[in-house]
Amino acid sequence: MKYFVTGCGGFIGSNLVDRLLKDGHMVVGYDNFVTGNMQFLESAFQNKNFLLIIGDIHNTELLNEAMNGCGFVFHLAANADVRFGLNHPHKDLEQNTISTFYVLEAMRENGIKNIAFSSTGSIYGENTIYPTPENAPFPIQTSLYGASKLACEGLIQAYCEGYDFKSWIFRFVSVLGERYSHGHLFNFYKELYDGSDTLTVYGDGSQTKSYMYVQDCLDGMLIGIEKSNNKVNIFNLGTDETIQVYDSIQWVFEHFNREVMAKYSGGKRGWVGDSPLIHLNCNKISELGWSPKYSIEDGVFATLEYFEKNSWLMEVRGEL
Amino acid sequence: MKYFVTGCGGFIGSNLVDRLLKDGHMVVGYDNFVTGNMQFLESAFQNKNFLLIIGDIHNTELLNEAMNGCGFVFHLAANADVRFGLNHPHKDLEQNTISTFYVLEAMRENGIKNIAFSSTGSIYGENTIYPTPENAPFPIQTSLYGASKLACEGLIQAYCEGYDFKSWIFRFVSVLGERYSHGHLFNFYKELYDGSDTLTVYGDGSQTKSYMYVQDCLDGMLIGIEKSNNKVNIFNLGTDETIQVYDSIQWVFEHFNREVMAKYSGGKRGWVGDSPLIHLNCNKISELGWSPKYSIEDGVFATLEYFEKNSWLMEVRGEL
Repeated sequence: MKYFVTGCGGFIGSNLVDRLLKDGHMVVGYDNFVTGNMQFLESAFQNKNFLLIIGDIHNTELLNEAMNGCGFVFHLAANADVRFGLNHPHKDLEQNTISTFYVLEAMRENGIKNIAFSSTGSIYGENTIYPTPENAPFPIQTSLYGASKLACEGLIQAYCEGYDFKSWIFRFVSVLGERYSHGHLFNFYKELYDGSDTLTVYGDGSQTKSYMYVQDCLDGMLIGIEKSNNKVNIFNLGTDETIQVYDSIQWVFEHFNREVMAKYSGGKRGWVGDSPLIHLNCNKISELGWSPKYSIEDGVFATLEYFEKNSWLMEVRGEL
Repeated sequence: MKYFVTGCGGFIGSNLVDRLLKDGHMVVGYDNFVTGNMQFLESAFQNKNFLLIIGDIHNTELLNEAMNGCGFVFHLAANADVRFGLNHPHKDLEQNTISTFYVLEAMRENGIKNIAFSSTGSIYGENTIYPTPENAPFPIQTSLYGASKLACEGLIQAYCEGYDFKSWIFRFVSVLGERYSHGHLFNFYKELYDGSDTLTVYGDGSQTKSYMYVQDCLDGMLIGIEKSNNKVNIFNLGTDETIQVYDSIQWVFEHFNREVMAKYSGGKRGWVGDSPLIHLNCNKISELGWSPKYSIEDGVFATLEYFEKNSWLMEVRGEL
């Protein structure tokens, strides 16, 4: 099978490319490298089954051409800048909602009918059921990021009904692991790496979050795609565990083994629209035989170890 | 209060303008008259409190200026062409999702924080609970129209959280009454008005639908806005009754009092993405003291009577 992966230069995208190549597939990767990293594709470049096309999804002509001959699309490209969404509300619309429309249209143009999509637990907004199942009560959106991902899901579902597509939609918790380079654990690490003796924490540190290790995330996606075959297949992907932001701070301190003070901005939320609690019910994917191999703590330490070996990442990326 | 009404030249929009003017308010109407009708504003033009700005919502500069000084936005402009959505999938995205983004941005630019939005029962897709309450299980979209309205709702909700807006979101069933000029009852009437002796019916006629009379719809919106004051206020608006497409055909025949044959295209759906059953639970708005004054049958006959007195409408509008 020849797979098309948007956002192939990103954290999850590049790990997926490596996995698909390892499984013997052909992969066409597409990325504009605005937030992606060419270095993440180093091992992919060694493989003759990998083709990289550098381009923006809004360049629809190039996108159409690039997809030619592929049979399945992983649409992972996205603006994942959740925290600063309110500073530039057009970004989520353009890079998530409209981009997804372009991807779907390019698929239609090329006669490709299968799509896997990286959605988010953020689309549950603030609901009343924890852990939250896929069929939770109709949620109210609390962030532009969640709203844009919800819009993407809706578009994909309508294409399934209207144009006979088949889709696998995965609602992730936060993902950690090798090449993770965006989010609060990255920011904590970078601040201490840069030599600060205080750590800036948004919120009061009590926000409850769930994290998943990137290889577990890929396992979940691939099992979901292999074992479910409805028109629209929606899965939460996360761990049964949660931690509080405190805990991850503690682990970062432990890793650095240095006296540091945490400075809390206060409040239940890290920022406007931050979910004070994300905890997904993952029974649906578990019933297909998936379970995460890494605990949250394992995932955090694997990530910290990765940072240690890849300090170049601290140099190339500002706070995101 | 000075209200801003997008889609003021449309069926519901023009009725709303008249109502707001009658209640003594100032109204700025905005419409590009692509599907709107200048004739619908005839009585509004007699009122010095009405100002019409002819423009497209994608003309964001004009939109920004037009909103100046208003305190409340009714965003009713939309592509409501549900049936042919699949022929031009960009339309729902551009005219619903992206337009709503522009409206929200213009509000932000003008410091306006209150918005009422006409959503649709279509966003429940095919769910399992009938009548469907506002907090039904997280639905799967079945039409581009529903998907785009869902995207609008998400955007509006995120603006409420992020920019301290307040919103009233109304999920309508189909609306009928004076100036109704779009949808299957219109098409039935027009076909017979044009002299056909067969009537084209999409689906097998058994589709179960709910309809609401336009003045009841306006009452519902205004009561919802007056009596609820959360950050995000979501209401279904419909009647407790349902009818089947058969029934409306029977009433049209009765009105024409002529021998006509109905030709059914067959199938449970009128078209791909048509909901074979829309029936909303309206307890939430009822608890605020609203109830529809017109039965579905009353609404249908009021509409047929309106058609009879306004045959010009049959001339100016093709099948929509």
